[in-house]
Amino acid sequence: MSDMPARISITEEGPREGFQIEKGQIPTARKIELIEALAETGLHEIQIVSFVNPKLVPGMADAEQVVAGLAQRPRVAYTALWLNDKGFERALATGKLDTRATISLSASAAFLRRNQNRSPEELIEAQHRSLELYVRHGTQIEQGLIAAAFGCNFERDIPVARVVELADQLVALAAAHGVKLPRIDLADTMAWATPGAVRRVVGAVRDRHPDIEVALHLHDTRGMGIANAYAGLEMGVAHFDSAVAGLGGCPFAEHEGAAGNVCTEDLVFMCQELGIETGIDLERLIACARLAEEIVGHPLPGSVKQGGSLARLRAAA
Amino acid sequence: MSDMPARISITEEGPREGFQIEKGQIPTARKIELIEALAETGLHEIQIVSFVNPKLVPGMADAEQVVAGLAQRPRVAYTALWLNDKGFERALATGKLDTRATISLSASAAFLRRNQNRSPEELIEAQHRSLELYVRHGTQIEQGLIAAAFGCNFERDIPVARVVELADQLVALAAAHGVKLPRIDLADTMAWATPGAVRRVVGAVRDRHPDIEVALHLHDTRGMGIANAYAGLEMGVAHFDSAVAGLGGCPFAEHEGAAGNVCTEDLVFMCQELGIETGIDLERLIACARLAEEIVGHPLPGSVKQGGSLARLRAAA
Repeated sequence: MSDMPARISITEEGPREGFQIEKGQIPTARKIELIEALAETGLHEIQIVSFVNPKLVPGMADAEQVVAGLAQRPRVAYTALWLNDKGFERALATGKLDTRATISLSASAAFLRRNQNRSPEELIEAQHRSLELYVRHGTQIEQGLIAAAFGCNFERDIPVARVVELADQLVALAAAHGVKLPRIDLADTMAWATPGAVRRVVGAVRDRHPDIEVALHLHDTRGMGIANAYAGLEMGVAHFDSAVAGLGGCPFAEHEGAAGNVCTEDLVFMCQELGIETGIDLERLIACARLAEEIVGHPLPGSVKQGGSLARLRAAA
Repeated sequence: MSDMPARISITEEGPREGFQIEKGQIPTARKIELIEALAETGLHEIQIVSFVNPKLVPGMADAEQVVAGLAQRPRVAYTALWLNDKGFERALATGKLDTRATISLSASAAFLRRNQNRSPEELIEAQHRSLELYVRHGTQIEQGLIAAAFGCNFERDIPVARVVELADQLVALAAAHGVKLPRIDLADTMAWATPGAVRRVVGAVRDRHPDIEVALHLHDTRGMGIANAYAGLEMGVAHFDSAVAGLGGCPFAEHEGAAGNVCTEDLVFMCQELGIETGIDLERLIACARLAEEIVGHPLPGSVKQGGSLARLRAAA
């Protein structure tokens, strides 16, 4: 328990993860409504859109309109995802986004081939080109992400040593462009992580790079999301990616309707009860989760939006 | 991590918890179908019915028929719940149940008043009378249960010292009838537990009674069920009550549709991945979870039945 952080930060990915996976188009105004409500909760970073091919991801075809229509709050970073230079240039062109960037590698070559039709070497080469572009634009490199860090549906278990090797590669990639990597984000892309694996992988990466923050991007497809986050907290992890209401499904699950990203309000609830500061107003966040559910028009997986907070029960005493 | 058990046992409570909370009557034959399927998974104990007032719990009016219709497997304990001597006598009268008994106290007097309309002193008195009956019938006392051990919607946070005091009372109650209590089951009746609280309360009870096994009865109403189970495993807890597919809702949640008991197959999945033996065939258990969902006719909260196991993906390699 001694490594438990006093405070964590969260990247809210619900709008981006959630709205791109929903069948049927969500009206732009409703996307903006949720993002604006999330910005009132105390969240410091909200990933609001992705700039990807609208033919492949029709749910994100209105990315520019979402950004343009948004009333922005100060001290909230509105960020975006992109997968290539064209997407980055679309994000820049909005003139309204925080374009802090992530460089990414994949612990599974088989997943990389299926997901991006690239080899590991081609991905490293692409990251070099992206880094050149980021450095030219003075873009902050926020983190290096390792996809499939805990396992892969196509390559099965991933050795811890390989994740450490990829962490080294990310550090070297950034260093080659004069950038000191501040954070490594271990992504459980296909929900293979369990608390024991979180402890092992986080521990190995932290031991190898004690000066770099380790973050977790967790999925709840097999119900382990919150337990994995707890194991991460025990290991001192102080940054998490999560999605309000558990927005965002999992395309790799056995059955449709499986949970996607770990749920922000469940994570914030746990931290609140563990005495870990998040800076987030849980009651407002729960209201956002219920709004998200209303917007998508079907039940979403988060639990605290159903069960209610304990702070509320205590206050009613 | 050092206290992690090598093996755990589970009391499967899905048929009892689940079928008594469902609106509308589940056909007796379908209840039997699920229980018989569960008995094929390697589960050692299945709580299959409760003997309670059929006017108050109409879903359990067919308890005797369920027991009578069941083809029993050897080496599986088919158990039941009852709340008074009449219920115990109904269980005995079936002649086909394992009538191992639980004695119970409540950490919250307010909950006890609302739930059973009794004072703590009246409850202790009732437990004495039940113990006399059990001893007369040669019934095994399996455990003492502490309801609301982590908090209460009506009394809020429960001091750890009170739980320890109740553990002492349970031990003394049993001892007064010549019984050495083998296990104390800490029940998170209204889903107030978080992993930190699990560590504190389990630790305190175990320190006080190192010769008595500590078990956990967890609810997932606020999404903490599996994380709490993990914290329990870290503290050496080796017995859990759980429900297949997360059957059983929560009457104390803020909104309808909240999750009930912690989900058996999600717990078994976590243990399997942590290298903790359960004796249970996870694939068969997942099939049971899907059967349970089909029987109740609506989605149930368990995750692994949607996401699928990892062992299956590994085997497909």
